[in-house]
Amino acid sequence: VRRIADRLVIAGVGLIGGSLAAALKSHGAVGEVIGIGRTRENLRIAKQRGLIDRIATDPVEAARDADMLVVATPVQAIAPLVALMAHALPPRAVITDAGSVKAPVVAAVERALGRQAARFCGSHPIAGTESSGAAAARADLLAGARCILTPTARTAASTRRHVRTLWEAAGMRVEEMPARLHDRLLARVSHLPHVIAYALVNAVADAERDHGRRLLSYAGGGFGDSTRVAASSPEMWRDICVANRDEVLRAIDDFLPALARLRDAIEVGDRDTLEAELARAQSVRRRLAAMPRPAPRRGTVTRLSTARARKP
Amino acid sequence: VRRIADRLVIAGVGLIGGSLAAALKSHGAVGEVIGIGRTRENLRIAKQRGLIDRIATDPVEAARDADMLVVATPVQAIAPLVALMAHALPPRAVITDAGSVKAPVVAAVERALGRQAARFCGSHPIAGTESSGAAAARADLLAGARCILTPTARTAASTRRHVRTLWEAAGMRVEEMPARLHDRLLARVSHLPHVIAYALVNAVADAERDHGRRLLSYAGGGFGDSTRVAASSPEMWRDICVANRDEVLRAIDDFLPALARLRDAIEVGDRDTLEAELARAQSVRRRLAAMPRPAPRRGTVTRLSTARARKP
Repeated sequence: VRRIADRLVIAGVGLIGGSLAAALKSHGAVGEVIGIGRTRENLRIAKQRGLIDRIATDPVEAARDADMLVVATPVQAIAPLVALMAHALPPRAVITDAGSVKAPVVAAVERALGRQAARFCGSHPIAGTESSGAAAARADLLAGARCILTPTARTAASTRRHVRTLWEAAGMRVEEMPARLHDRLLARVSHLPHVIAYALVNAVADAERDHGRRLLSYAGGGFGDSTRVAASSPEMWRDICVANRDEVLRAIDDFLPALARLRDAIEVGDRDTLEAELARAQSVRRRLAAMPRPAPRRGTVTRLSTARARKP
Repeated sequence: VRRIADRLVIAGVGLIGGSLAAALKSHGAVGEVIGIGRTRENLRIAKQRGLIDRIATDPVEAARDADMLVVATPVQAIAPLVALMAHALPPRAVITDAGSVKAPVVAAVERALGRQAARFCGSHPIAGTESSGAAAARADLLAGARCILTPTARTAASTRRHVRTLWEAAGMRVEEMPARLHDRLLARVSHLPHVIAYALVNAVADAERDHGRRLLSYAGGGFGDSTRVAASSPEMWRDICVANRDEVLRAIDDFLPALARLRDAIEVGDRDTLEAELARAQSVRRRLAAMPRPAPRRGTVTRLSTARARKP
């Protein structure tokens, strides 16, 4: 594997940032990894697990010798952090992010960078679990998963190539698409399911007022699967929903008629329509299950001696 | 383990019926197990895997020497099957079912049994995966999970005890509650999540009209988890939704405001309310995750030499 960077700065050494670091290190694709972040305790865990070599307390200072900057913070923090660090980065340094929303983030970063915009290319590594933080990072989290790059007319070809190589070194399948298309697609297959899972859990929490706490204790594996993502970081998902507002609203509004069709069939006792709708969903869901997709291998031991996967 | 029955008839040797048979056999809690069902091929698999000792083609004939009858078919078929077989059962024989809806099923079965109603006690073993059929049955599927019994004033005390012993022999934690309460609780924590998962997949299928088949290929693990139960049997879930109509409608109608609260906060950009709602769900979901619950151990090898867990 080719070396990606002698000195890589990761801002936000959480599940994604930490897993990227772990993967690059396990493949010898990186020299020194410097971590910055808000939470001292999280950085300490990242260092202890060998995900990063060094903690930097001053982002501007950390930028000085970096070959590459990866901003893997919640969406809202990406552009401000780039704005803060960009002027200190050496001319050769390339910037990317790991945000789940691209159009507004890319626009804000390019605005912040001004004439330096050519050195930035937006990324979205489509991987993750409901866990967060450096403690949950794993060298194999990204392997085999997709990463979408959203270069613009302002992105330098060399930046694109460099950022592509970064994620490929972590084992990802990289493709490019316009940021707006990314946001539209991800609103459907990722943001909407998260919103629904949060709402489903809240509806059960509301119902506990009538039925007491034991209601939840009757939940089986189905409820557990359906709501797993509702254990995800509220701050991260607040940012995603607000940043991708229009597409998320559209996805919710397109979901409601699909739910109403089932509700109507149940209400009038239309068994044929109901079964047809359920069967349609089943066949699509089975198509998904049959897709070649390396699911994150939970509990796999990473190659880093100190970086063992912890139970979420 | 005490012997539950010398001759046990299981009607519907699917995931639940087959797993019950496998568990009882692996603990030596049962003599001969006779399987009946609509699908010859499924019964053949059940026999081949050692879940049942014998296939009966005539339900009435199968009833003649049975000590116990467990009806583990889709909900709609339970009462008709009991009505068909009851007159042939010996006086000592006890009857139970495994339906996910109880009030209408129990009422229909008691009606069908008339003066024999004392020998029936409704059951709902709360276990399962999105897989179905004898091929998916596993001796450990039920172990540690809850089973709810819904006896009525007509149920004999000896029937209650006998049915309780049946599920306990399969390792289940048995409790009793009124059928109507069962239906209300399960509508919230099981039926609603299924309806939502089916609707979510259909919404993505609808959106594929605009985005093409590749939309689904951008789904990550979150979408996969959220919609896993949508791979469940459409016939079984049609029956459940129709049988538990009122409670399912109520659960859907109580879910919609929880979704609307998130939608409104996203629309107006109320970041504080949004984060508070997401955080509330997260904390409830984490409470669920922390509950002692033996999740079905996927891929565990059963103790039956021929009954190995297959990949769903």
